Amino acid sequence: MTTTILLDLKWENLKSDRTFRQAMPECQFINWADAESKKADLSQVKYAVVWGPEPGLLGRCSNLEAIFSVGAGVDHIFSDPDLPNLPIVRFVDPMLTGPMVEWVVLQVLMQVRQQRRYDQQQRDHQWGELPQPSAPKFRIGIMGFGELGQACAQQLLGFGFAMNAWSNSPKDVEGVTSYFGNDQLSEFLANTDILVSLLPLTQATTGIINQQLIDGLAKDGPFGAPIVINAGRGGSQVESDILSALQDGRLHGASLDVFETEPLPANSPLWDQPNLIITPHAAAMSDPDALAAHVANQIARHEDGRGLENLVDRSLGY
Amino acid sequence: MTTTILLDLKWENLKSDRTFRQAMPECQFINWADAESKKADLSQVKYAVVWGPEPGLLGRCSNLEAIFSVGAGVDHIFSDPDLPNLPIVRFVDPMLTGPMVEWVVLQVLMQVRQQRRYDQQQRDHQWGELPQPSAPKFRIGIMGFGELGQACAQQLLGFGFAMNAWSNSPKDVEGVTSYFGNDQLSEFLANTDILVSLLPLTQATTGIINQQLIDGLAKDGPFGAPIVINAGRGGSQVESDILSALQDGRLHGASLDVFETEPLPANSPLWDQPNLIITPHAAAMSDPDALAAHVANQIARHEDGRGLENLVDRSLGY
Repeated sequence: MTTTILLDLKWENLKSDRTFRQAMPECQFINWADAESKKADLSQVKYAVVWGPEPGLLGRCSNLEAIFSVGAGVDHIFSDPDLPNLPIVRFVDPMLTGPMVEWVVLQVLMQVRQQRRYDQQQRDHQWGELPQPSAPKFRIGIMGFGELGQACAQQLLGFGFAMNAWSNSPKDVEGVTSYFGNDQLSEFLANTDILVSLLPLTQATTGIINQQLIDGLAKDGPFGAPIVINAGRGGSQVESDILSALQDGRLHGASLDVFETEPLPANSPLWDQPNLIITPHAAAMSDPDALAAHVANQIARHEDGRGLENLVDRSLGY
Repeated sequence: MTTTILLDLKWENLKSDRTFRQAMPECQFINWADAESKKADLSQVKYAVVWGPEPGLLGRCSNLEAIFSVGAGVDHIFSDPDLPNLPIVRFVDPMLTGPMVEWVVLQVLMQVRQQRRYDQQQRDHQWGELPQPSAPKFRIGIMGFGELGQACAQQLLGFGFAMNAWSNSPKDVEGVTSYFGNDQLSEFLANTDILVSLLPLTQATTGIINQQLIDGLAKDGPFGAPIVINAGRGGSQVESDILSALQDGRLHGASLDVFETEPLPANSPLWDQPNLIITPHAAAMSDPDALAAHVANQIARHEDGRGLENLVDRSLGY
């Protein structure tokens, strides 16, 4: 019997199912982006590859065996109240890690080297060097220290930054001071000049980047006020708290790639905040070829009994 | 006899001689920034620490034994036609290398990740992801592959960029394809999507970044047109050639920290070119403490016969 795969991919660069058909020529595909797919018999579907599937869609696939997320995060799947209790596979890929490390390092350096102030000086035709504290004087704290966070830390260590990390469980990474659990969160924050969040969105991380967290960050760093960088999920941040801290100087700067509502509404006051760098959820984009190869590889593992990899732990939510 | 040291430091952050007096309390100092120093007896001066000394000043120090440059470059010393034939010591220091690596990586990432277009989108309150070629698709070529260039290459390799280098002599650095000499320059350029110049200013490098060089760069890279980044010396670039290439699309973008005339005149058309990132010779600033410690250390080596380090080769001009 032909294996049937449901694709519900949303992302612009993944809307075409061509790469999937090429990677798994023996399979049959239902591309939910096609109008006629709505008539398809979902009981045939054995695997689903999804980003933010409409609630109930996966539940209608009565013979589904596994769910593949298009990204490293899976909150877009858990938001379905009728989600069937099946294995969920995350997409962890160098093609995703590389761009994320680039984005995080770019934002750290733009903040540390005060690029936004130099941009303003350029617009004003103004020549003038700004004070430049050296990298070892900045303590970077990464929240969410899995594969992506560790790859970012590796590259940031090369510049000589002092590195801290906070996660659910202790992590032993050379050169990085590890904090874990709620008990150590305030100590971690008090030793952080530049906070980088790569947290998944769970109940515990919803709204975690709020006024209380911001006020707990170090105030004795090179700029006298801390910096917040979020490449995790917009649901982890309270944007009104970040904005008021940027306005009254409790935050020196911020870089956000993710937002409470995406796309960020055109009338959001965030756009015009000069010490806030905004990118449109563009830090890391799943590569269609790599995603299709990953799904093909995991399906092969599942079918020949080697088992699926990068499975989500439902109790943790990521 | 007390050792007398002449300081002619120019840079804002070095104008005070306090760190030198602290590092060498047994020495006497003539700070050329002080008006009264002009009356001092220069025949006492044994060592001079300078940035762009006025022509003839060093020649008047009849008992001078060594000249210390405030930076890694020494063209600001060679421009003196009456320069005495004495050892010249360059300032090579991690405090200088680190900021330079930061600046080069920042500019590479801003160009590769199209940060200037995202900045414009932010000003326009516009949400939209731009195409994002992966790092291995970009070939970065570093011109001038000494200590600074190799430190930059090391950090850029961590992102997965393809690395080339061009210098006077072949350099064996793992992961970097080495080109050298005039014979291999055109091959190097044809394999370079992002040119990073860290060249010292010599007769051979004056005006080397001109229309001919730009037209020799690769045109088959991810953006279809190359990028030029210069953190070496402004005298190595022909700004009118860079500007016209940015305007007609032969260059996709550029980042310049150095200029033919510094400060860059307020009426220069460069300021308003949107795909050109300008910083005010701020890539790396000598740290006063590190500079004073370096000079004290080299003087101690010279006095006890261990010999000076990081000496300039006059035949090469750097």
